[in-house]
Amino acid sequence: MKNTLLIYTAKAAACVLLLQTATFAQTDEQLYQKADALLKQMTLQEKVNMIHGSSSFTSGGVPRLGIPEWVMSDGPHGVRVEHGRTYKDSTGVEDAGTYLPTGVCLAATWNPKLGYAFGSVLGSESAYRGKDVILGPGINIIRSPLNGRNFEYQSEDPYLVSRMAVGYIKGVQDQGVAACVKHYAANNIETNRNNINVELSERALREIYLPGFKAAVQEGNVYTLMGSYNKVRGEWATHNNYLINQILKKEWGFKGTVISDWGAVHSTQQALWNGTDVEMGTDLSLGAKPDYRKYFLGDTVLALVKNGKVPEYLINDKVRRILYIMLKTHVIDKQRKKGSYNTKEHQQTARQVAEEGIVLLKNQNNLLPLTPSIKSIAVIGFNANRPQAFGGGSSQIKALYEVTALEGLKKQAAKGVKITYAQGYKIERGAKADESLIKQAADAAAKADVAIIVGGSTHGYDYNKWSDNAYDAEDTDKPDMNMPFGQDELIKAVLKANPKTVVVLLGGGAIDMNQWLSSTPAVLQAWYPGMEGGNAIANIVFGKINPSGKLPMTFPKTITDAPDHKLGQFPADKDSNMVYYFDDIYVGYRYFDTYKVEPQFVFGHGLSYTQFAYSNLQVQSNGGKATLTFTVANTGKTAGAETAQLYVHQQKSLLPRPEKELKAFEKVFLKPGERKQITLNLSADAFQYFNDVSNNWITEKGKFDILVGSSSKDIKLNGIVNL
Amino acid sequence: MKNTLLIYTAKAAACVLLLQTATFAQTDEQLYQKADALLKQMTLQEKVNMIHGSSSFTSGGVPRLGIPEWVMSDGPHGVRVEHGRTYKDSTGVEDAGTYLPTGVCLAATWNPKLGYAFGSVLGSESAYRGKDVILGPGINIIRSPLNGRNFEYQSEDPYLVSRMAVGYIKGVQDQGVAACVKHYAANNIETNRNNINVELSERALREIYLPGFKAAVQEGNVYTLMGSYNKVRGEWATHNNYLINQILKKEWGFKGTVISDWGAVHSTQQALWNGTDVEMGTDLSLGAKPDYRKYFLGDTVLALVKNGKVPEYLINDKVRRILYIMLKTHVIDKQRKKGSYNTKEHQQTARQVAEEGIVLLKNQNNLLPLTPSIKSIAVIGFNANRPQAFGGGSSQIKALYEVTALEGLKKQAAKGVKITYAQGYKIERGAKADESLIKQAADAAAKADVAIIVGGSTHGYDYNKWSDNAYDAEDTDKPDMNMPFGQDELIKAVLKANPKTVVVLLGGGAIDMNQWLSSTPAVLQAWYPGMEGGNAIANIVFGKINPSGKLPMTFPKTITDAPDHKLGQFPADKDSNMVYYFDDIYVGYRYFDTYKVEPQFVFGHGLSYTQFAYSNLQVQSNGGKATLTFTVANTGKTAGAETAQLYVHQQKSLLPRPEKELKAFEKVFLKPGERKQITLNLSADAFQYFNDVSNNWITEKGKFDILVGSSSKDIKLNGIVNL
Repeated sequence: MKNTLLIYTAKAAACVLLLQTATFAQTDEQLYQKADALLKQMTLQEKVNMIHGSSSFTSGGVPRLGIPEWVMSDGPHGVRVEHGRTYKDSTGVEDAGTYLPTGVCLAATWNPKLGYAFGSVLGSESAYRGKDVILGPGINIIRSPLNGRNFEYQSEDPYLVSRMAVGYIKGVQDQGVAACVKHYAANNIETNRNNINVELSERALREIYLPGFKAAVQEGNVYTLMGSYNKVRGEWATHNNYLINQILKKEWGFKGTVISDWGAVHSTQQALWNGTDVEMGTDLSLGAKPDYRKYFLGDTVLALVKNGKVPEYLINDKVRRILYIMLKTHVIDKQRKKGSYNTKEHQQTARQVAEEGIVLLKNQNNLLPLTPSIKSIAVIGFNANRPQAFGGGSSQIKALYEVTALEGLKKQAAKGVKITYAQGYKIERGAKADESLIKQAADAAAKADVAIIVGGSTHGYDYNKWSDNAYDAEDTDKPDMNMPFGQDELIKAVLKANPKTVVVLLGGGAIDMNQWLSSTPAVLQAWYPGMEGGNAIANIVFGKINPSGKLPMTFPKTITDAPDHKLGQFPADKDSNMVYYFDDIYVGYRYFDTYKVEPQFVFGHGLSYTQFAYSNLQVQSNGGKATLTFTVANTGKTAGAETAQLYVHQQKSLLPRPEKELKAFEKVFLKPGERKQITLNLSADAFQYFNDVSNNWITEKGKFDILVGSSSKDIKLNGIVNL
Repeated sequence: MKNTLLIYTAKAAACVLLLQTATFAQTDEQLYQKADALLKQMTLQEKVNMIHGSSSFTSGGVPRLGIPEWVMSDGPHGVRVEHGRTYKDSTGVEDAGTYLPTGVCLAATWNPKLGYAFGSVLGSESAYRGKDVILGPGINIIRSPLNGRNFEYQSEDPYLVSRMAVGYIKGVQDQGVAACVKHYAANNIETNRNNINVELSERALREIYLPGFKAAVQEGNVYTLMGSYNKVRGEWATHNNYLINQILKKEWGFKGTVISDWGAVHSTQQALWNGTDVEMGTDLSLGAKPDYRKYFLGDTVLALVKNGKVPEYLINDKVRRILYIMLKTHVIDKQRKKGSYNTKEHQQTARQVAEEGIVLLKNQNNLLPLTPSIKSIAVIGFNANRPQAFGGGSSQIKALYEVTALEGLKKQAAKGVKITYAQGYKIERGAKADESLIKQAADAAAKADVAIIVGGSTHGYDYNKWSDNAYDAEDTDKPDMNMPFGQDELIKAVLKANPKTVVVLLGGGAIDMNQWLSSTPAVLQAWYPGMEGGNAIANIVFGKINPSGKLPMTFPKTITDAPDHKLGQFPADKDSNMVYYFDDIYVGYRYFDTYKVEPQFVFGHGLSYTQFAYSNLQVQSNGGKATLTFTVANTGKTAGAETAQLYVHQQKSLLPRPEKELKAFEKVFLKPGERKQITLNLSADAFQYFNDVSNNWITEKGKFDILVGSSSKDIKLNGIVNL
């Protein structure tokens, strides 16, 4: 009897397993069998059709074999506005969707679970919109405050980038859609991005610029990757033997598909041999009726193979990689989850990311949150009332709605609080301080209990080149870090009229605050906080939400303090198009800490409405690894979240190392009076560095300081690991 | 008593061992300790002095610490004429030395022991002349018949290259002098060599272009390596991260010094980071009083280190590598063997290489060797009486003497044989057939029992650009493969006057013989056979030496048949400077065999005055390896040597493979009637190929044909290895 039952159970289990295997959990072996079966039936022409674009955002399919076109979409923080088959098409599609906060805001949450939630929203809306591949996350290292695309990226720190990227990717891909980590690699300058050649040391490559991509591949299991526009060491990144064949595919074992950035392929042969799997491009160059067979991976490939100049197995490998991912994501059998669109849950995720990502930079005398005694607020600034979703380049989103700061503050304010609005400045190329707007603003501030200026940078709305310090956008960098449109004058005038002034900054990163910071009591860095950004700002201003964002990059005082300007080059040399990363591994806080330069706000900085106490650090190390435990307590009166950051400093090393490096962190949510023990594990690689001479990761014996803190500077606990 | 003796013996042995360790057999650890001790005492300026040239052929020393300048010399087949500290200096040094046959002739011997002997002569004369580093061997793959520098190189086949290079290097270095294998890598085109960018597949790189260098490092333990002029995949080869840091130093574990080709450094940063250890250059660019501090690795390095833009440990690593090799070769303690110069033994080695390297291409009706019945010989051709040692570029040698063919024939001819000489053609840029010279030659031939035309290509004597089909020289390629100076007309006229005509060809490789080959009974390929070349030619002509050379490259019928012209590109595109090796792995016989194109003379071809019989092939395979035994017998009446060649052909492979590939060979010397059993071992890698898709060497199971023959076409024995 017992035996019979066991057999029955075993059979049922086997049956379930079989069913699962058949419909969902296909093994790689099964997928490759299917891919190979399809491949065998394909003509060379059909194969070549699959390795290049067939419209603005599709690569070719094989209708005869039931292989549809492969559908891709920008971009990292939402499904892009629909362009149809060419950029000039207009479509009847309902493409107003969820607009999530941009990458820097996500990273500022220091909450990988939110990364997953963010990715899930994106994956779900991508599936709903019929997208097979969503072109994100963008994880290039924020090397310079001036990069126009920083807003889409994550951080200056490779560990933080890795943690956020892995969450994001898993979130997307668990919805059945392929993520596309980008832009591989060393694409840290937008100026002349199609021509510049980046030269950097192997150590900088390994320690700073690659870890995020490695984590995306090895931990996130990302299905696709986008090659970047620039050259690295003389070879275009999108078809770079070393980066793609040697490191990505061989060393890291990437099994997915390498997609070119749009128009980043420059050579048929190099793309064929050096690992590019799909050539995509902007069809604009192809005229009114784009003929995609003219692409580098189009008819030329056919001719080369037919003439015996290129072996067909190279093309087979690319098609096999595409089919493998198509099958894995159910593009061919159309069994993918349907996804959902514009749900309340998606909008809540957008808000939560904003609420956890906005950083309270300064809060003198606890001006924030505003107390109920505040009965009138002067909201000032063009940014307070300007939607941002549609700007910035390829990441443009047609948002279902976008709550601006002004709308949010009006909506969230307690009854009876009077809110006025003054524009304060003009968003207009080259606009200087406008005395009359400033006067209006100062007058409004003088009449209110408190003034809230919402300013900073903004997005451009078109594809023209900006080269302007005002705009965060693709394909351009900022010439300086100054506040644009005369905002310095505006802020100073408002402060004079009403010292109780809160400055809320939008933008992709650091801006020069020297003219007014010391006299401004409260400053919030709000990034581009997405469709719910206005509500999030308001909730923080009014104390419904306790801010918990931490800076994912250092804010230098002036641009001349930044390491790429002090040590390195930014942008590339105009004549040679060469750029040397002389700053090497000294990016962000690695530079400021090591070279003893005081920034405006340090990496990892972010205030709270409550206070946290750190205690009882215990260090256990064993076999090159270490486990750290410590306690964080909320000693204030407000519930809040703290991101405890763990930095490692090697006391004595053969080669110089940065003063400290982030190796672990955890965000804890604590009620007033609550305390939690945090356990952080450091694996062996947390102590390693890349030795340029031996050309290897090395672990040296010796003492390593363990620095646990609330930011990279505000170290609360010290310990030592002896290796 | 017995015990005492044993102890005494042991003590003595230990004592000897101790002595050896102290004076000669220094361990690497000891050398590094010494190097580090020196390094610690050096200022940054002193270190920088060591990483760049201090004169035309020295890099800087540190007199204060007893570190002399490091003295280098061209070139691969002799110690170059003395230039003093600049190319314009004249010196009183006795620099007329031993002029060995050039690289192709050495390779044509298929005798690695002669490679060792050749290297020993070179090492010994280098030591005598006070050279610490001799810049050879040159081992670039002979990809095109038109490369102007083929004469200095070895072969189209990477296995043959490897075997000869290893012998050569050990020969040099056993004399206490550092060899310098060159030019790393893919430097197979001289035209515009300072600008071209080579793009090639990883498979071609791994299977064809790198194995010789790998063998030089891992089997030959070569102390230094020279980076080449060209770019590879967008980055200058001399400072190419992938080639030097990743492959050479990391993957292969090269511990020695990377020296730039002269003037091949283009960037301080790239040289510093990407593995160049010493920048050398032609001082001509620096004016009358060369200031070597202006080199890329000169004062700029000082400034970069002082400004914190480059870590000093990079410079330390280069200096340490230099010191390590200097110490290993006793440059600092001056304990190196003194060497010897212009000895009879050296000259005998030169002759032996020539005698074993000259290839009997054709010998209809056994015209050669000339029988005693021949009483008069008409020697014809400018090359018969023209020394070649001083030409060709950097490999120029001031020979102590050079026996020309005419001199050799006169010297070696039996008493009573009358030898006349007619010039036949003019060596002069653009010279066409000279009717009067041809008439003189034909008249002479008509009057003689036999005519010997010594023609072919020649060397240029200066550094101007040739771009001419006549000259084998550095920095230029040939525009075509035609016989220069109207030699076709000459040969045809002589053949008409006397059908008993032997053609002896000098030159670095294939030349178009279509106009006269079918009617010419005997042809010898004599390369540039060195100072004893005339004697060697004469000894072969008169039968004192039985020729045993085998072609180390395929001779195509016409240049349009050559794979670099059929499939690939040669030279680079003039506008873009790009060259794609579309010919991929199909270089030389790999192309001709696989694509069924009939060459003029196949790879490995070479006739003898005797006959050899092959028999009794036995195949044993075990664990991926195989051992082949077979018997070669001399069935003729003359003692002679045969190079038995073993080719492998995989019957069925996932990726296409060449029709056959050389994997072992052995040269046996057999008296008439003598037979020898030959055992050849194939290691696992003899069956592998490089898979471009998996980006790895792979071994596939299946059947492998074993083809043993007298050339790549004349297969005598067949077997099968089943893996």
